[in-house]
Amino acid sequence: MTQSLAKNIHPITEHGANVLYQHGTLALLVPGLLEGTTTIGELLKHGDTGIGTGEGLDGELIILNGVAYKVGQSGVAEQVPDDFTMPFANSHRAAFQYQCERNDIGLEELNDRIVEANGRANTFFSVKVHGTFSFMKTRAVIKQQAPYPTLLEVADRQAIFLRHDVTGTMLGYFSPVMFHGAAVAGFHEHFLSDDHTFGGHVLDAVLGHGEIYSQVFDTLVTHLPVDDPGYRNHDFSQDNIAEAITSAEGDTRTD
Amino acid sequence: MTQSLAKNIHPITEHGANVLYQHGTLALLVPGLLEGTTTIGELLKHGDTGIGTGEGLDGELIILNGVAYKVGQSGVAEQVPDDFTMPFANSHRAAFQYQCERNDIGLEELNDRIVEANGRANTFFSVKVHGTFSFMKTRAVIKQQAPYPTLLEVADRQAIFLRHDVTGTMLGYFSPVMFHGAAVAGFHEHFLSDDHTFGGHVLDAVLGHGEIYSQVFDTLVTHLPVDDPGYRNHDFSQDNIAEAITSAEGDTRTD
Ligand SMILES: [Zn+2]
Ligand SMILES: [Zn+2]
Repeated sequence: MTQSLAKNIHPITEHGANVLYQHGTLALLVPGLLEGTTTIGELLKHGDTGIGTGEGLDGELIILNGVAYKVGQSGVAEQVPDDFTMPFANSHRAAFQYQCERNDIGLEELNDRIVEANGRANTFFSVKVHGTFSFMKTRAVIKQQAPYPTLLEVADRQAIFLRHDVTGTMLGYFSPVMFHGAAVAGFHEHFLSDDHTFGGHVLDAVLGHGEIYSQVFDTLVTHLPVDDPGYRNHDFSQDNIAEAITSAEGDTRTD
Repeated sequence: MTQSLAKNIHPITEHGANVLYQHGTLALLVPGLLEGTTTIGELLKHGDTGIGTGEGLDGELIILNGVAYKVGQSGVAEQVPDDFTMPFANSHRAAFQYQCERNDIGLEELNDRIVEANGRANTFFSVKVHGTFSFMKTRAVIKQQAPYPTLLEVADRQAIFLRHDVTGTMLGYFSPVMFHGAAVAGFHEHFLSDDHTFGGHVLDAVLGHGEIYSQVFDTLVTHLPVDDPGYRNHDFSQDNIAEAITSAEGDTRTD
């Protein structure tokens, strides 16, 4: 690949900070703390763009231009109301910078190039790709009921979807390795087709042709469900969090 | 110990969130990324209470009632100007809740009781103790020059101070274990005597008599030095961060 991505300069927002908002932590999901402890309405106060998962891992959420969609086990996207609850979600105010166009590039290489272009593997950033994907493989977890299973147990309870030549938006976040546990180190990306008939948590993809945008954050706001008894009383020390997250949520998972 | 601490209810601030602000991460200090990337002036915008360390690990900072003091290798506290720079610091707007009075209690037991009373080992909180300490052992690192040593190398380059029957304020933060690396899991406490002749990073203490206050946070704001080339280009994957922090910065270090 000789085609390179433009250097990214992070834009300064009106408050002088470029903020990624996160409710909960990935570490919460490992032992099955899947109660919905925030709402779409609350999340939208902190941004117009984002991803998340519903209570009981009910579907894969994506927020674009202030509208939240959920992809559940049918694979079809549906708009969700403001009172829809989630154990874990991210949002931010979109101020993406255009990077470049790319053709015929696999997900892994695309992600590597974006990190390279940013020169910032130690910072949080968002990536947005709009275009036609010659291949897109996603998953959506089937909604679980309390008492909730662990993240590893749930790995078998998911629907996998495949599409070819689908046009839409892939939105994701990159988190530095030192935040693994609080966040998912590396990329966490969701997809929504332009016609809303398809989406989910991205497992693998090939971009046929599309435009790449990114936005670097200097500030991570982590909001914790401190009033949730399940969270407050849980002993995380036995959960082997880093490994469980890597195997269940990592962007290298392809099955 | 039959004396118990009152249950803590976290107060809601004017913005509906109780926020701990952090500049940098402890993980930065492990490989010696000790450039000052924020200032006291900036830190004070986010709170009137806090702790930190100066550029090159220049002293132990404590902010009380909006005034910042540094304890360097002399052990004496001096006020620092707004343009004093730091690689790592915390601050918050004080809204402490009174917990109780305690007599003749060692640091470790005191900290355990505070976690117990909060019932919140998974949340960030601040603890403030004002009283007379029958024993107080602190340290201050001797200011290092670039190229900076690693945190483990610097462990030998610190001054240790001991005082008996000293009256003052111990201020600290508790971070949940899942944030180890981004923060120091457990307690990180600094001390300032009322007469400002003594202070530092607390290694060990016995509280003779004092009042205990705490403040639970639901939100952690992490501000990263994304424009610092040393940070941006560093490969943290080789630093063995969790172990290095535990051995060099943990509250169990007593030598
Ligand atoms: Zn996902
Ligand atoms: Zn310290």
